[in-house]
Amino acid sequence: MSWNSFGRVFRFTTWGESHGPAIGVVVDGCPPGLPLSEADIQPWLDARRPGQSRFTTQRQEPDQVRILSGVFEGRTTGTPISLLIENVDQRSKDYSNVAQAYRPGHADYAYDAKYGFRDYRGGGRSSARETASRVAAGAVARTVLPEVTIRAWVEAIGGDAIDPAKIDHDQIARNPFFCPDADAALRWETLVDAARKDGSSLGAVVVCEATGVPAGWGAPLYAKLDSELAAAAMSINAVKGVEIGDGFAAAALRGEENADAMRPGADGPAFLSNHAGGIAGGIATGQPIRLRVAFKPTSSILTPVPTIDRDGQAAEIATKGRHDPCVGIRGVPVVEAMMALVLADQKLLHRAQVG
Amino acid sequence: MSWNSFGRVFRFTTWGESHGPAIGVVVDGCPPGLPLSEADIQPWLDARRPGQSRFTTQRQEPDQVRILSGVFEGRTTGTPISLLIENVDQRSKDYSNVAQAYRPGHADYAYDAKYGFRDYRGGGRSSARETASRVAAGAVARTVLPEVTIRAWVEAIGGDAIDPAKIDHDQIARNPFFCPDADAALRWETLVDAARKDGSSLGAVVVCEATGVPAGWGAPLYAKLDSELAAAAMSINAVKGVEIGDGFAAAALRGEENADAMRPGADGPAFLSNHAGGIAGGIATGQPIRLRVAFKPTSSILTPVPTIDRDGQAAEIATKGRHDPCVGIRGVPVVEAMMALVLADQKLLHRAQVG
Amino acid sequence: MSWNSFGRVFRFTTWGESHGPAIGVVVDGCPPGLPLSEADIQPWLDARRPGQSRFTTQRQEPDQVRILSGVFEGRTTGTPISLLIENVDQRSKDYSNVAQAYRPGHADYAYDAKYGFRDYRGGGRSSARETASRVAAGAVARTVLPEVTIRAWVEAIGGDAIDPAKIDHDQIARNPFFCPDADAALRWETLVDAARKDGSSLGAVVVCEATGVPAGWGAPLYAKLDSELAAAAMSINAVKGVEIGDGFAAAALRGEENADAMRPGADGPAFLSNHAGGIAGGIATGQPIRLRVAFKPTSSILTPVPTIDRDGQAAEIATKGRHDPCVGIRGVPVVEAMMALVLADQKLLHRAQVG
Amino acid sequence: MSWNSFGRVFRFTTWGESHGPAIGVVVDGCPPGLPLSEADIQPWLDARRPGQSRFTTQRQEPDQVRILSGVFEGRTTGTPISLLIENVDQRSKDYSNVAQAYRPGHADYAYDAKYGFRDYRGGGRSSARETASRVAAGAVARTVLPEVTIRAWVEAIGGDAIDPAKIDHDQIARNPFFCPDADAALRWETLVDAARKDGSSLGAVVVCEATGVPAGWGAPLYAKLDSELAAAAMSINAVKGVEIGDGFAAAALRGEENADAMRPGADGPAFLSNHAGGIAGGIATGQPIRLRVAFKPTSSILTPVPTIDRDGQAAEIATKGRHDPCVGIRGVPVVEAMMALVLADQKLLHRAQVG
Repeated sequence: MSWNSFGRVFRFTTWGESHGPAIGVVVDGCPPGLPLSEADIQPWLDARRPGQSRFTTQRQEPDQVRILSGVFEGRTTGTPISLLIENVDQRSKDYSNVAQAYRPGHADYAYDAKYGFRDYRGGGRSSARETASRVAAGAVARTVLPEVTIRAWVEAIGGDAIDPAKIDHDQIARNPFFCPDADAALRWETLVDAARKDGSSLGAVVVCEATGVPAGWGAPLYAKLDSELAAAAMSINAVKGVEIGDGFAAAALRGEENADAMRPGADGPAFLSNHAGGIAGGIATGQPIRLRVAFKPTSSILTPVPTIDRDGQAAEIATKGRHDPCVGIRGVPVVEAMMALVLADQKLLHRAQVG
Repeated sequence: MSWNSFGRVFRFTTWGESHGPAIGVVVDGCPPGLPLSEADIQPWLDARRPGQSRFTTQRQEPDQVRILSGVFEGRTTGTPISLLIENVDQRSKDYSNVAQAYRPGHADYAYDAKYGFRDYRGGGRSSARETASRVAAGAVARTVLPEVTIRAWVEAIGGDAIDPAKIDHDQIARNPFFCPDADAALRWETLVDAARKDGSSLGAVVVCEATGVPAGWGAPLYAKLDSELAAAAMSINAVKGVEIGDGFAAAALRGEENADAMRPGADGPAFLSNHAGGIAGGIATGQPIRLRVAFKPTSSILTPVPTIDRDGQAAEIATKGRHDPCVGIRGVPVVEAMMALVLADQKLLHRAQVG
Repeated sequence: MSWNSFGRVFRFTTWGESHGPAIGVVVDGCPPGLPLSEADIQPWLDARRPGQSRFTTQRQEPDQVRILSGVFEGRTTGTPISLLIENVDQRSKDYSNVAQAYRPGHADYAYDAKYGFRDYRGGGRSSARETASRVAAGAVARTVLPEVTIRAWVEAIGGDAIDPAKIDHDQIARNPFFCPDADAALRWETLVDAARKDGSSLGAVVVCEATGVPAGWGAPLYAKLDSELAAAAMSINAVKGVEIGDGFAAAALRGEENADAMRPGADGPAFLSNHAGGIAGGIATGQPIRLRVAFKPTSSILTPVPTIDRDGQAAEIATKGRHDPCVGIRGVPVVEAMMALVLADQKLLHRAQVG
Repeated sequence: MSWNSFGRVFRFTTWGESHGPAIGVVVDGCPPGLPLSEADIQPWLDARRPGQSRFTTQRQEPDQVRILSGVFEGRTTGTPISLLIENVDQRSKDYSNVAQAYRPGHADYAYDAKYGFRDYRGGGRSSARETASRVAAGAVARTVLPEVTIRAWVEAIGGDAIDPAKIDHDQIARNPFFCPDADAALRWETLVDAARKDGSSLGAVVVCEATGVPAGWGAPLYAKLDSELAAAAMSINAVKGVEIGDGFAAAALRGEENADAMRPGADGPAFLSNHAGGIAGGIATGQPIRLRVAFKPTSSILTPVPTIDRDGQAAEIATKGRHDPCVGIRGVPVVEAMMALVLADQKLLHRAQVG
């Protein structure tokens, strides 16, 4: 089943294909009276926008967002907020070979298996272009969350990780990789350039942290904050792994090592560690929420790969369209947006039940 | 918000606390006419049942399931299936200290922060006892999936992993660890025994594989199979990490390494690898679905840990109740159940849209 | 699709068949800390209970409710509340003819058409016995609504209506018909007796009023309070019509007649009329919510009716089981319960969005 | 809570205000491969379009629909279908008095009570303009339902009903009232003209019939076809009453009168009557589905009505904007659309569960 909505009470529905006339999102359930204009949304879209460096796709999309509903005299009205972004730089002719053969790792074969045919232009609905809609919706979610600060960055590209000791959040905006470690950013220039020139691509790990989330948001059991964040992150194109807090590393710890011991604090407990990533029993503890997300390397590559065509015959395919050499980089604003969207939903759910 | 339902058209709702009179689950949306009796459900519950070896909690629960509705003359009627399991071996007096102070890593503090108070007996709703309801529901889901084989096992305990070269699926049922590597199972005896005697606990990694899932199940975008599985796995107690296919390892690969190249096959493509874990664009490719799940070590341990009490004062806590030294072990049937529940839902969703 | 849940954030799921071992309901999303015990639920079930006069079915069901989860030390914990009612007076042998032939007006044929077979004993899932679960859930909903008073009554039986001028709410509990007009109650004794002796049945109209609902609850557009109440009422067995406020009568009015003019009031507007039944634009205005519900006559009657059997052959059927001569009478506590369930959900949704 | 989505697997979400730049709808869950172009949608919008006779509002809206996504090479792709309709003839200056005072019967006061302020221009989100989005979505739903014929008409205006003996479906398209009785249509010209000239408005009753719905669609219990249709109809602006089949009239019948007796038929049972409106136990019987809907008179009238202003002071209001003298007339294509949307959803749900 096609399922293009997310959220329980703060909900959004995205639509649009890579090479259609436009993409967009409808955000429903937003509280009324919040200041909102295109200027509140555009900067987040600009951060995700392609074509800003040689390390992302060269498709030129201004990604200008228009608010079509739900805002009156500069404030949200409580009714659905429709956001629209026009596609202006489609080059569908690049995709003629994709129409006939399946790009390994891409959604091509699976879409045909499900639907019998597909909009192959630029990947159609399965294109990462859809994530612009999420970023726009995420900007609305942020207005619901004045108490929360969300910050994501790239932790590793192609297996080359930052040095945790060198994390400087101010660096994130100063390089094209959302990298908090200036040295790593330099190395990644060489690394990504090489992959791009080779006609290859690289995977990446993105980390996202939300501070200011009050203890109590979240829920047992099937809307556990861990579960909501995992669903949100895994719904992003190319994501194949999610961790909360220590994640897989926790599986190698002993109980007393993994326990986030507490001491009396100024306002609630003072935790001595945060292995749990700020979530216990699915509910926020008041500590920073920590999420780690694995992006696989971009499936669309210039390097020819063995495949089959629509008739089941052997073929080779090299994707000639414009693509990100490392789709994880531009995943940073997307992961931030999904964090905001989950937290806005959970905030409203919390006050629904607890007041 | 408390949210105790999962699924979109094949849905289930669990209820019950560790030390209440019973726990249970209502499964709704099940197709009619499927053979179902308690005997189809009980073996899966028996696999998860506590007290079967010294490596799990010594709580003695027969976990006898009763079908209270939705089955007539041995077949499902298409109406909701209510399953009930009585709790018979509660020892609530063990939990008096838990009532006053918060077990680090456990849900205690977070529940109080959210709800103002909690049923502290045995962890109440946050107890892994709830997973018996999932296993019962999963048995119903399996009846919907005759074409699918689901198999899970423990891959690592406390950081000690099996040898992939020694995997023998027949071993899984022959040791108390659901371990497919006979040598590792021997090592784990010592390892888990030591942790238990130390009053400590261990984390674990569980792997789950589903074969026979036809290409086409799944959906763009917010019901991507990856996303549904991640949500399902992360909703299990103590789970903090989820991977589909290569997961985080894919983030270190190059595009051509990660591409699951195809060749013409007997029936659809023959894939040369399965980095994607059987899912592309959120849709099954026909390859085995591969899921990896990280369980943190049990939070309830005998080793004293610094904490605070309900009045915010400094305290120490050692959990005296009966607990699993490694909650991941009994997670194996639970992960299998969640896999079945997601796949049953996706099967029905697929035929809703595509026929 | 079988769909046995209702509500958006305050949700309930019912299960159980007329002649199974038990019926029940799981209420999820209830706020924590509310006093709740069986004694808060039982009186509402007692009001609906069969066998209390000769004007309802003679099936003897004590309808004793048990709370199996979600309550600790007398208060709701915020986790799912499971309520169970045992069936004790099934007489399945009465239904052998129903197994073979379809009762016109009843769900028999439609269930077979959908599911291929059915639990025919007492109507199985389609029996009005399911409404006991709603009444139990409704009792929980009432604890969420201290500000609201809900009162329903029978307005007409078999076309014989009460005199609006003679409505005395104190009468409702004093006769077996929930009738607020003592004279009408006397007439209905004769009327219902006659129908019962004839082996026939009668329809009824139930009115329900909720006072104390604050202006603002409800929502545009697809959760309009009118729409939620209509869905709730129409989901009750045998209901075929719903009106909010003047309902169909409003369709014969002119705009100025139907306008509920306002004057300044002590606390918000003082309305000069209530044609709209307390709802404008889907949102409560602060006036009493007024709902009117039409129940068709019980389909199970002793009078033989032409029908077909499972093989498609002509047959006659007379239903010999015990049945209500007028199912609308015991519909009164059910309509009240559904009103409470909708309002509890809307109260929580309102504070989710508006705070 | 704002809730602007409808449907369970075939879902749509509408957005937009009367005087914003555009309105629209996203339809999700549509099966793939169905032929769809603007030309399939436009005729239904044209039927609903204002300004086509003196009996509807004089606002001139071409209501040209654009498909922005979900269709490729003339066929649905299975991904969300975004439909957009620009607003071109807003005259917001007409509404200055509405900004200050509340129109009785309209949503003005309730929106302010809920949200604290509102987009008053043309009624904002509460305007019947939203129904254009439903009609567009309904056109998509029709492509899913080739086996079903849906036909609605006006049965009464201002209490003046058609003569059932004179129903001629061919007449419906030949007069501006969707009236199947040519004589009634003539009378309504005079009636509606008079109301318009008086600055008043009239209510109406709309009937909708769907033939070709196979026995089996629908569901127990909270997605009963009756309940889904009631929710759908009651979500339309100005609707205050809904009946399935005989509706309230059934409440005055005896069991044997109301029973839809059966005889063996060519293909399933031959029913001797259709009091139940084609639905038993919430499931279609194969007979025509019959729905009756009451529209109250338009709340926006030129006749001054006592009210209060935003400061709670006494005022009078006469609505000077352009309005339908009888909003029920243009309700006909809207009721048809909602019927199609419910049936498409139920068709997909049925095949999800039963295959």
